[in-house]
Amino acid sequence: MTEKVYRTELTPVSFLERSALIFPEKVAVIHGQRHYSYLQFAQRVYRLTAQLRAHGLHKHDRVAFLCPNIPPLLEAHYAVPAAGGILVAINTRLSSNEINFILQHSGTSFLFVDNELYHLVEQLNLDALQVIRIADDGTDNDPYEQFLAQGDPHPLHSWLVDEEETISINYTSGTTGNPKGVMYTYRGAYLNALGEVIETGLNSESVYLWTLPMFHCNGWCFTWAVTAVGATHVCLRKVEPEQVWDLLESQGITHYNGAPTVQIFLTNHPKAHPLSRPVTATIAGAPPSPTLLGQLKSLNIRPLHVYGLTETYGPYTVCEWHEEWNTRSEEEQAALLARQGQGYVTAEQARIVNPDLEDLPKDGSTMGEVVMRGNNVAKGYYGNELATEKAFAGGWFHSGDIGVWHEDNYIELRDRAKDVIISGGENISTIEVEQLIARHPAVLECAVVAIPDATWGSVPRPL
Amino acid sequence: MTEKVYRTELTPVSFLERSALIFPEKVAVIHGQRHYSYLQFAQRVYRLTAQLRAHGLHKHDRVAFLCPNIPPLLEAHYAVPAAGGILVAINTRLSSNEINFILQHSGTSFLFVDNELYHLVEQLNLDALQVIRIADDGTDNDPYEQFLAQGDPHPLHSWLVDEEETISINYTSGTTGNPKGVMYTYRGAYLNALGEVIETGLNSESVYLWTLPMFHCNGWCFTWAVTAVGATHVCLRKVEPEQVWDLLESQGITHYNGAPTVQIFLTNHPKAHPLSRPVTATIAGAPPSPTLLGQLKSLNIRPLHVYGLTETYGPYTVCEWHEEWNTRSEEEQAALLARQGQGYVTAEQARIVNPDLEDLPKDGSTMGEVVMRGNNVAKGYYGNELATEKAFAGGWFHSGDIGVWHEDNYIELRDRAKDVIISGGENISTIEVEQLIARHPAVLECAVVAIPDATWGSVPRPL
Repeated sequence: MTEKVYRTELTPVSFLERSALIFPEKVAVIHGQRHYSYLQFAQRVYRLTAQLRAHGLHKHDRVAFLCPNIPPLLEAHYAVPAAGGILVAINTRLSSNEINFILQHSGTSFLFVDNELYHLVEQLNLDALQVIRIADDGTDNDPYEQFLAQGDPHPLHSWLVDEEETISINYTSGTTGNPKGVMYTYRGAYLNALGEVIETGLNSESVYLWTLPMFHCNGWCFTWAVTAVGATHVCLRKVEPEQVWDLLESQGITHYNGAPTVQIFLTNHPKAHPLSRPVTATIAGAPPSPTLLGQLKSLNIRPLHVYGLTETYGPYTVCEWHEEWNTRSEEEQAALLARQGQGYVTAEQARIVNPDLEDLPKDGSTMGEVVMRGNNVAKGYYGNELATEKAFAGGWFHSGDIGVWHEDNYIELRDRAKDVIISGGENISTIEVEQLIARHPAVLECAVVAIPDATWGSVPRPL
Repeated sequence: MTEKVYRTELTPVSFLERSALIFPEKVAVIHGQRHYSYLQFAQRVYRLTAQLRAHGLHKHDRVAFLCPNIPPLLEAHYAVPAAGGILVAINTRLSSNEINFILQHSGTSFLFVDNELYHLVEQLNLDALQVIRIADDGTDNDPYEQFLAQGDPHPLHSWLVDEEETISINYTSGTTGNPKGVMYTYRGAYLNALGEVIETGLNSESVYLWTLPMFHCNGWCFTWAVTAVGATHVCLRKVEPEQVWDLLESQGITHYNGAPTVQIFLTNHPKAHPLSRPVTATIAGAPPSPTLLGQLKSLNIRPLHVYGLTETYGPYTVCEWHEEWNTRSEEEQAALLARQGQGYVTAEQARIVNPDLEDLPKDGSTMGEVVMRGNNVAKGYYGNELATEKAFAGGWFHSGDIGVWHEDNYIELRDRAKDVIISGGENISTIEVEQLIARHPAVLECAVVAIPDATWGSVPRPL
């Protein structure tokens, strides 16, 4: 730890310590019938911390979790860094082979695995690992609970020396090749969490519903952001629209996140109805269609459109709303909100550049790559210098996403570089075609791909 | 600048760059009939930056401002660091001698001075300084405006290498001895500004009224916080309750800050009336009395009680409200809110300690010194190693404030160390006596001091 009185190394673990100090009795975590106060949440985290150390964890050892959005994974986001380890939250939709690659590549020492997902690792050679199973059945027989019960509920001395140390590794599921392990720093996690608090308007009265997987960019850093303000986490094993609608009302949810697909499931469910209090839905992954935006608003759900990648801790840009846009037509508003906007308050300006990293004109039509840098960009790929050098060449992170730059400085995505359809020598943006089709009220969701064509080389076709 | 793609040195100058990028046409600054958009605000700042460099500013040169809460002082909070200088915002209530000490001690190169305050420096030897006068009359003849007009409205390359460099020096007016120059860092200013955004709930729709002097801890970092979210600054040459009430309504103010004295002036003015939209009033300097709190609430003003010193960038602790306290009696609520609470989300835990820096019991009665540390604590005193060593001894900043620690971890001030009244060998807290007297509805404001007494040594007497 630094000896400077005026410096504390930034770490999101401090958020939990503070909320346990200020709001010890406030509900921190809800999971079905189970409720943990902030004091209980912290004590569970400290128990896990103590147990990791007691079971031989060394500084920077990797600790993997394979489980849905349940309290143990939330606890891991504090206990693993508090113990000095590095969290590897594994995508639960991966195959056994992919999971095996991640366990081997990360050199994981501990694996915590949910019973329902155990079949994914059953065939693997886990001899080198300490495996702790999670029953999540609310009983004391749960091996995870037994593991916790043996730990001391008091905080241990932190081993953190430098806020640029790695706090987590998030493996991206690239479409080609092996997954790459994206390294987040303590500093980045802390600043991104505060960025999420500010951009989505979280405060101590907020109630956050875990529709977004925690394994996905550490839940866009909401695992830490929600705790930072002493708000309430509502866990969810599985995203089922009916249950989500029940929770929206019964728990007084104020915030949730998800891709448009999740939002479409929700808005089109029979239980969908205007909510009595406004809810902020942060949307990323694809631009929301005008139809979806209209539906969300009619349900008293305020859509916030953000954009980012695993390499940017989740969201990096936000389409900041301008008050004067409220007077525009619904269609115009949807078009404005479909843009990805600009960097968070904690981020630098996102740029659209040519291959020489030169700014492209802000004309809303010249396509180029989105590049980003700074505190909201990851440290690199774990054990993969080559991929790191390539992705961060020239001092900027190359997203591989293709977009345009509007006159008002907002960026708008047109495609993934690899998805651009070259038809008759012209570049066609699949997103542009998708957006156009999705405007038809009869269309629920739409994806456009290229199919081979004798005349044009390729032509777009909606799925 | 660091070569790491994943690191940007933290600087509040980035807040202005971002808001000018995202909200170029939004009103950034209101000063009477004058309005500046974020683009204009940024261009004025860049002009000032360019002029400082053009007039020979070297890195870390001190630039002093002696003026009320007018746009030039707000601009200085961005232009001086953008140019690479260090801002010295001087308390306008000081005498010529004190101002002279600050100018000499800081070794200031540039002095910007408001015409109404020029008499304070008229007699001083200013030969070593470049002096620019500010007329603030809204005309092009204003020497400050002429200075700006010659500058280039585009940003210059930053000279910032390390976020721990000094961004500003704020001289404290100690009651004994010469003022000490408290050094703030870029990192501290950035993190404290985000802390203010989160704790006071600022967002892009906020309108902030400058009742708190900007020379006071750089306006508790609100000079930077308001800009960070693209909110609107409303300047104010002088705090006159009548004008404040007019602005609260006409400008749709959502936030303002001030000591209880300022709040009392406001609540007792004939124009006082319940506001149509809720306003957050952040209060520091002394605990608000129950009477004041009741009055504020009846005016639709939400009081937020914070505590800090110049050495902590302004507020360090906040009395975070608990929802369940809403059901308590008014008197109980006032007593709860009169406490200073605990550290901001960006701060460490505030402690109450004995002279050996050991924690005192959390019993609500054992008095000890308030100590603090970390990113919300200043770097030290400029050119005063001795005072720095003393104030920061043992790895903690010694506030000189005496308080108690409640069972729920909140701290509550009892006195300044030097104000404690020793009467018949017992310590009497002047704040406790003041609070008791102020509960009487006929009492507007109250201060208690010690007067000599033949029997008791000293006895308290209200003023």
